[in-house]
Amino acid sequence: MSEPLPFGTIAILGPGLLGGSLAMAVRAAMPEAAIRLWARRETTLQQASGMGLADTACTDPAEAACGADLVVLATPIGAFRDLAEQIAPALSPGTIVTDVGSVKNYVHRTTGAYLHEQGCTFIGSHPMAGSEKQGLEAAYPDLFRSASIVLTNDHNAPQSTVDRLKQFWELLGGKCYLMESRHHDRTVARISHMPHVLAALCAYSATKGDVRMQDLQRLAATGFRDTTRVCSGSPSMWTDILWENDCAIREILHTCLEDLKELIRLLEIQDKDQLHAWLQQARDNRETIIGGQ
Amino acid sequence: MSEPLPFGTIAILGPGLLGGSLAMAVRAAMPEAAIRLWARRETTLQQASGMGLADTACTDPAEAACGADLVVLATPIGAFRDLAEQIAPALSPGTIVTDVGSVKNYVHRTTGAYLHEQGCTFIGSHPMAGSEKQGLEAAYPDLFRSASIVLTNDHNAPQSTVDRLKQFWELLGGKCYLMESRHHDRTVARISHMPHVLAALCAYSATKGDVRMQDLQRLAATGFRDTTRVCSGSPSMWTDILWENDCAIREILHTCLEDLKELIRLLEIQDKDQLHAWLQQARDNRETIIGGQ
Repeated sequence: MSEPLPFGTIAILGPGLLGGSLAMAVRAAMPEAAIRLWARRETTLQQASGMGLADTACTDPAEAACGADLVVLATPIGAFRDLAEQIAPALSPGTIVTDVGSVKNYVHRTTGAYLHEQGCTFIGSHPMAGSEKQGLEAAYPDLFRSASIVLTNDHNAPQSTVDRLKQFWELLGGKCYLMESRHHDRTVARISHMPHVLAALCAYSATKGDVRMQDLQRLAATGFRDTTRVCSGSPSMWTDILWENDCAIREILHTCLEDLKELIRLLEIQDKDQLHAWLQQARDNRETIIGGQ
Repeated sequence: MSEPLPFGTIAILGPGLLGGSLAMAVRAAMPEAAIRLWARRETTLQQASGMGLADTACTDPAEAACGADLVVLATPIGAFRDLAEQIAPALSPGTIVTDVGSVKNYVHRTTGAYLHEQGCTFIGSHPMAGSEKQGLEAAYPDLFRSASIVLTNDHNAPQSTVDRLKQFWELLGGKCYLMESRHHDRTVARISHMPHVLAALCAYSATKGDVRMQDLQRLAATGFRDTTRVCSGSPSMWTDILWENDCAIREILHTCLEDLKELIRLLEIQDKDQLHAWLQQARDNRETIIGGQ
């Protein structure tokens, strides 16, 4: 006899890369679950329905959320609060609302706080999975397999409710970690948002000074390609992320600035031993972070 | 009837990742060519010989270079000058000496100038190919396939000599571009060395501030992994590269510093439009550089 599903009806608002992959993953791992999809545009819903991802598809978020045991906000974070206002009256008492946004404190302060005031249950989720690609076209069912999923419960939902959400993500192959939202934001500022900024900085600065674009094109190899890969991600999405995790990002970018100044200083004073130690520390950090997974 | 080989006997000094891959590539593309290998350590030579990469293997560089039509310096750049002094007396009048170093002006100013004074021919080569891995174990015969190879002829070898070297690299699958060494160094400072520094900066700064290593490990995903990949490269090799391309690197790192300050300022003054434009510019630059290949 199989375990009962943590959620029988799941509403996914925004079937882009994450939302679309989530629908695919739910179909694969929980074929009995009903999926209700909301998208702003009718064409997206038609596309998703054509892929067999929706039992119900509608352009009214309240209608999509109605009767769902779990509602997943999967639009850009900036749209969450407005969606929350639209769906709140339609939610059943036991419904859990979660999201897949990259920033958690901002979401708790805005959307989470609003839903909490309305007597609804909100727990944040951040699946550490994604791609520089966007949209339903880039979605795939294994996106969450082996991914770390951070759960944030700043509004103190009961443990049994957190456990249900945890079980849901685990059925999709994720590994869940509960964190306070501010701590999550400081951690992802370092491990995800700062890498994005430095990748972008690399591409932004590369063309400056006395150098020809044609030569950059000819000499670009895998080093440039990999180091800058993530900055192919949507500038709009990343503007939002930097915006919404502003404090934690500025803190780590100021650290970066000082560390880069120190490296330049070592080159200027020609301290080869310290330069080596700096590069060795960077490599050791990377091995510890990646190797400890 | 096949073309005559540009070089019948090729000496490779230092069979590491690049030198070892070069030996493999020569074996595959020019099976008639004789390969003479030099390594500092006997065990490396035994390993290379066991892999069928050497017709002659010796721990005396002059002996390895003797009778070669082409000598390739494939050790770290810091060892070039010393090797050049040892091999110069053993070189035949028509022998071409080249290298595979990542920095070219420093090599011309030191090793190239010395060989030129001795009446020997030196043309620099920089294959834009490599890996964060090192050593003969990481070598593979296709390393140069489709790679850009920069040739630097600061000491004005005759065109026919440059053409022979070009033909050699093309037979291994490379695409050759002739550049003045200073221009090469400024270009690779932007497209290869600065990406390395920023990848290292990302890993160096990530662990700073109020954050737990365990959380960084749990949340690190492909973004961090890819952005920092190149900084797994040998700190010793990269200390040398930064050292030897010092002027061009400091110039572009100062640009990076200003560009990063500007990004932080945009976050501080909350100019979302300019922040978006900054990220858009980074993405556009990357697409132009990668897309133009």
